[in-house]
Amino acid sequence: MTETLDQRRARLMGPNVPTFYRHPVHIVRGQGVWLWDAAGKRYLDCYNNVAHVGHCHPRVVQAIAAQAAVLNTHTRYHHDLILDYIERLTATLGHGISQAIMTCTGSEANDLALRMAQAVTGKTGIIATDNTYHGNTAAVSQLSTRRPPIGGRAPNVRLVPSPDTLAPLGGSLESQPQAFADNVAQAIAELQAEGFGFSGLMLCPVFANEGLPSVAPGFLDPTVAVVKAAGGLILCDEVQPGFGRVGSHFWGHESLGFAPDVVTVGKPMANGHPVAACLARPEAMAAFREAFGYFNTFGGNPVSAAACMAVLDVIEDEGLQARGAATSAYLLNRMRALRHGRIVNVRGKGMFFGLEFGGEGAGDFAADLVEDMVARGFLLNRIGRGGATLKIRPPMVFGRAEADLLADALQAALAVR
Amino acid sequence: MTETLDQRRARLMGPNVPTFYRHPVHIVRGQGVWLWDAAGKRYLDCYNNVAHVGHCHPRVVQAIAAQAAVLNTHTRYHHDLILDYIERLTATLGHGISQAIMTCTGSEANDLALRMAQAVTGKTGIIATDNTYHGNTAAVSQLSTRRPPIGGRAPNVRLVPSPDTLAPLGGSLESQPQAFADNVAQAIAELQAEGFGFSGLMLCPVFANEGLPSVAPGFLDPTVAVVKAAGGLILCDEVQPGFGRVGSHFWGHESLGFAPDVVTVGKPMANGHPVAACLARPEAMAAFREAFGYFNTFGGNPVSAAACMAVLDVIEDEGLQARGAATSAYLLNRMRALRHGRIVNVRGKGMFFGLEFGGEGAGDFAADLVEDMVARGFLLNRIGRGGATLKIRPPMVFGRAEADLLADALQAALAVR
Repeated sequence: MTETLDQRRARLMGPNVPTFYRHPVHIVRGQGVWLWDAAGKRYLDCYNNVAHVGHCHPRVVQAIAAQAAVLNTHTRYHHDLILDYIERLTATLGHGISQAIMTCTGSEANDLALRMAQAVTGKTGIIATDNTYHGNTAAVSQLSTRRPPIGGRAPNVRLVPSPDTLAPLGGSLESQPQAFADNVAQAIAELQAEGFGFSGLMLCPVFANEGLPSVAPGFLDPTVAVVKAAGGLILCDEVQPGFGRVGSHFWGHESLGFAPDVVTVGKPMANGHPVAACLARPEAMAAFREAFGYFNTFGGNPVSAAACMAVLDVIEDEGLQARGAATSAYLLNRMRALRHGRIVNVRGKGMFFGLEFGGEGAGDFAADLVEDMVARGFLLNRIGRGGATLKIRPPMVFGRAEADLLADALQAALAVR
Repeated sequence: MTETLDQRRARLMGPNVPTFYRHPVHIVRGQGVWLWDAAGKRYLDCYNNVAHVGHCHPRVVQAIAAQAAVLNTHTRYHHDLILDYIERLTATLGHGISQAIMTCTGSEANDLALRMAQAVTGKTGIIATDNTYHGNTAAVSQLSTRRPPIGGRAPNVRLVPSPDTLAPLGGSLESQPQAFADNVAQAIAELQAEGFGFSGLMLCPVFANEGLPSVAPGFLDPTVAVVKAAGGLILCDEVQPGFGRVGSHFWGHESLGFAPDVVTVGKPMANGHPVAACLARPEAMAAFREAFGYFNTFGGNPVSAAACMAVLDVIEDEGLQARGAATSAYLLNRMRALRHGRIVNVRGKGMFFGLEFGGEGAGDFAADLVEDMVARGFLLNRIGRGGATLKIRPPMVFGRAEADLLADALQAALAVR
């Protein structure tokens, strides 16, 4: 008997390895917004934010190939490219954030951010939302709302209720900003009472893993005031919203109008090449570098820096932030025109879109719809409480033509259920 | 005034960023065993194990470039290449280790290994040596002998005295294996008494960070017996010794003749491309996958897998393990012929070499010698207690001609001090 791909994967990678879809797709080729499977079927990629400037963008591929042929070492030697990149990237940030540690994954960057908050404050208490994910290291996974780890969840972690569009904290969208801040204040008081003290709040400024709830500019102002008053740091996880994805701004926190102390970036940074970074103000960086020894062998190597540079070049030269904003407005209008009794909310921010379903079994309804869309050649997924919200988060080169293809397919898939 | 490179680096990366040498070299190009700085000066690379098959090996560069142009996604889709690679890599391992989780750094792999031991045993107590380094995540850096972290060192960690060539545990090289095991047994008893229980022992099988002490085959047998009797796992950090570097065997643990439960790999795996892995027996993998959710966006992407494959191809096709063994024997003989009153020990294992100095100020003597060698165009460094041991760990393509260049330069540098 021939071993199936599923069986071979289980034999070599073990059980419970996460895949997308009931029958994982077997992708062999990518270009721009398109992916092809082993049978030659073409899929419109409505999901992969990592391939930010489009799958296999030739300028990124060329940058990687060229630098890999010349030099690939590490930051214990001097090299200009990592410095050029940090200078260019931090120039897009305000609030005095001018320094970086380069890592290989967003998880590593967030693991560092937690320790920066500890180094600045001398405390270990940390807060995140109760429906989030910030990475997979032992320390950072304590902030995820999954199974409790062996030995129990770390007592220095508090998870506060995440904002919600349909069931807002405090009972209304107007009350939600203060209600969120009040919960943070209560968590701080608990951490202080238990002797951990308070080091910081880590959050994604578009609450991408929380289902992209609608939050207006200024939403976090009461929370930031609470955190600052308690001497904590705002650790802003820009792994998903950064690099122009929110359309209106280059960074998610800019769109809400608050000043983070630490910013972490990853996934789209080099279009899939493994690189990420933890960016900070000099005083936070100095406190960290004083308290902890840290070196990352692969982090900030010349090839990674070249790939990162190429992504910034493409974002600028192809005007992807503005293009994303235009596509966003167009696709959001088309999604709002979709008609189905299950649709309870349509929302979007830049190249993030949520289509939320309601009623009994809304999660199953969304799951079936996702599978139908895959069969129709459209890759997307679902998120949020109960998994009842379609999550659409395409590469930034997704344009009006692709928006029409997606909206037409969604309408057709909804029409038959 | 023009900003120097040191100043620019401090401005963009912060203070205390580790560099090699009193005046960091500014490397701009690499090929094989050679590196060039910005002034055109050529250096023989006697240190960088990451560039395992030689800097910028054309087959690795080509593999990366070719796959990056075709597809770079993640393991939530099916892809053959990661499976082909895990199958090929695990075929080099015995003891039933047949599965892998691909990550981006050795630190991430060791962070996973710690959780695998927790998942299998349900306990959290962990042991390492007192002069080591296994990575930089918050969890793994608890095993490093650096400044205590904010909030204090985790109470579930015990560091036992590392083996030593000149000051062996128990007073003699013969007593050292049992003395090391006795210390592990005592640490286990302490962890059990304090309620953490015992999950495992993490170690590098050549004790590379401990200064490469001379340990004979069978050295760890008493320790493995102690760990097994207590129900713990042997977590074998092969990030440095793996992939043929020890010469006699493909893996460090093979050369000592013990059976690890988990093996972690990293640095040389793809010649500098950011990839690493945690390899385990199916029962350990299943326990982990049952206890923890884990997905790594970049880990095991097709480009990383292609780079990994190319490195295995080169190791095989160029016979690098056998070549390393031959070069090792030759260079070790030349090093043993070096004459200086400060030399107290010369040792080597495959393409790892240690040249230890004694007497008052031996660390400073070694430091000055390192700087002199850099000035002469040879990159190496120092390690071990007091930093009194020269650490030589070149790419595997380092041959007899390079060994002569190095030995001649060492003799010349020693002759003038």
